Amino acid sequence: MDAMVMKAMTEGMQSGEMMSMEGMPAMDMAVMQACMDACAACEQACTVCSTQMMDCAPACMNCADMCNTMMRSMMRMQGMTPATMMAMLDACIAMCQNCMDMCMPHADMSPVCKMCAESCQACMDACMKMREMMMAG
Amino acid sequence: MDAMVMKAMTEGMQSGEMMSMEGMPAMDMAVMQACMDACAACEQACTVCSTQMMDCAPACMNCADMCNTMMRSMMRMQGMTPATMMAMLDACIAMCQNCMDMCMPHADMSPVCKMCAESCQACMDACMKMREMMMAG
Amino acid sequence: MDAMVMKAMTEGMQSGEMMSMEGMPAMDMAVMQACMDACAACEQACTVCSTQMMDCAPACMNCADMCNTMMRSMMRMQGMTPATMMAMLDACIAMCQNCMDMCMPHADMSPVCKMCAESCQACMDACMKMREMMMAG
Amino acid sequence: MDAMVMKAMTEGMQSGEMMSMEGMPAMDMAVMQACMDACAACEQACTVCSTQMMDCAPACMNCADMCNTMMRSMMRMQGMTPATMMAMLDACIAMCQNCMDMCMPHADMSPVCKMCAESCQACMDACMKMREMMMAG
Repeated sequence: MDAMVMKAMTEGMQSGEMMSMEGMPAMDMAVMQACMDACAACEQACTVCSTQMMDCAPACMNCADMCNTMMRSMMRMQGMTPATMMAMLDACIAMCQNCMDMCMPHADMSPVCKMCAESCQACMDACMKMREMMMAG
Repeated sequence: MDAMVMKAMTEGMQSGEMMSMEGMPAMDMAVMQACMDACAACEQACTVCSTQMMDCAPACMNCADMCNTMMRSMMRMQGMTPATMMAMLDACIAMCQNCMDMCMPHADMSPVCKMCAESCQACMDACMKMREMMMAG
Repeated sequence: MDAMVMKAMTEGMQSGEMMSMEGMPAMDMAVMQACMDACAACEQACTVCSTQMMDCAPACMNCADMCNTMMRSMMRMQGMTPATMMAMLDACIAMCQNCMDMCMPHADMSPVCKMCAESCQACMDACMKMREMMMAG
Repeated sequence: MDAMVMKAMTEGMQSGEMMSMEGMPAMDMAVMQACMDACAACEQACTVCSTQMMDCAPACMNCADMCNTMMRSMMRMQGMTPATMMAMLDACIAMCQNCMDMCMPHADMSPVCKMCAESCQACMDACMKMREMMMAG
């Protein structure tokens, strides 16, 4: 994530202006930043992979859209609650898992599919860490 | 939903070319069409509502993005599985519920918020019907 | 476009709260409504067409995204100016023309490509009418 | 842009599988990568800025959507032509200029608006460099 954006979000949070979420304990911004980064990277990887016209393409397009929606929702945390965050993270994890399952069989013959599957795995991991942080909070 | 689009999707489905989802029984296309329509309408309602600069705006923007992603995923059903559909429907329902909760307090003073809340309710209902159909299938 | 959304937008416009655009004469809302409808329909048509894994797919995906962005921009007219509207309409027309050019060669063998090309043509026509209205205004 | 994604895109290009655009001379991938990065950063900056409920919000939301569409179109270059690229770059530049114009008056009182305006300027600059490269090509 762009350092300039993160800095502005964090400053906003400190002043209580941004990133507040009713009923949520303070969040480790490093975990959230990593999750937004992973979503952005996964959207890009899936977008590129979807142009290959292989059978993973629809799953890649769906995953790209969900990762973008997940990232934006974290950037507009004022409009989220713990319950909506959990449901969104679960859906994003499911979409990444699915896209990875579709791309992995092509990993050997397509470096783009391999890259896409790895990006999905990284995004799943980052979303799971967000989930764990919220459960622990 | 545009009649032309639906007709083409349904024809595709019959030929086995589109709308197939492994592990899923045949779906009632009328229920799915109603769900895609409700998502599209909700995206539009939330987009308009988000421009009012009231405290519901971030929830409306998040809901608009999720409804668009939900609609597109149903249009690219080849890239979905029953498990991903369930997770996505749950997330979409949660986002609509949340947006409605944010808009309802303004319903008396803003016809746009009232319209947005009603659109969210309709989208939730349509997603729940999709869920029920899939559970019964 | 959902009648409920349009009604709320139009009411907002009359009260000066929504749809205002500095430096723009009052717009014929029927022309704008038709344009938003055509963009929404084209996004859906292109999304469905992109799943066919034919060589039009990347153009369809690009066109779907642009049509959605065009529609949303018209729904958030407070953030537009005559100059940005013109540039966006030109870009949307170019993307629809391009998608139609890619789909037309498949029209005979794929009803989905035929539907997509027709939807692109309708969207181009609606955007051109918006353009003409703004030039005349 | 994620290094992994760029590497896969570039490899694809060399094999003629990706990034090809009929009628276009070979492009300097560093210029294109910088442009995609600037679009992604600008989408994020505008998304954060739009949650501040200031009068720049609709322009920020419109700019965020356009930057995402611009970025994705460059990632799906197979579906582009020189003419569509030019029209899209012009529209993206217009949207960034507009968003910057709306945010600059708040720059002194909001670090988020200042960051958003700077991100819009950077995205405009990167799009203009793409334009120049294509004109020279």
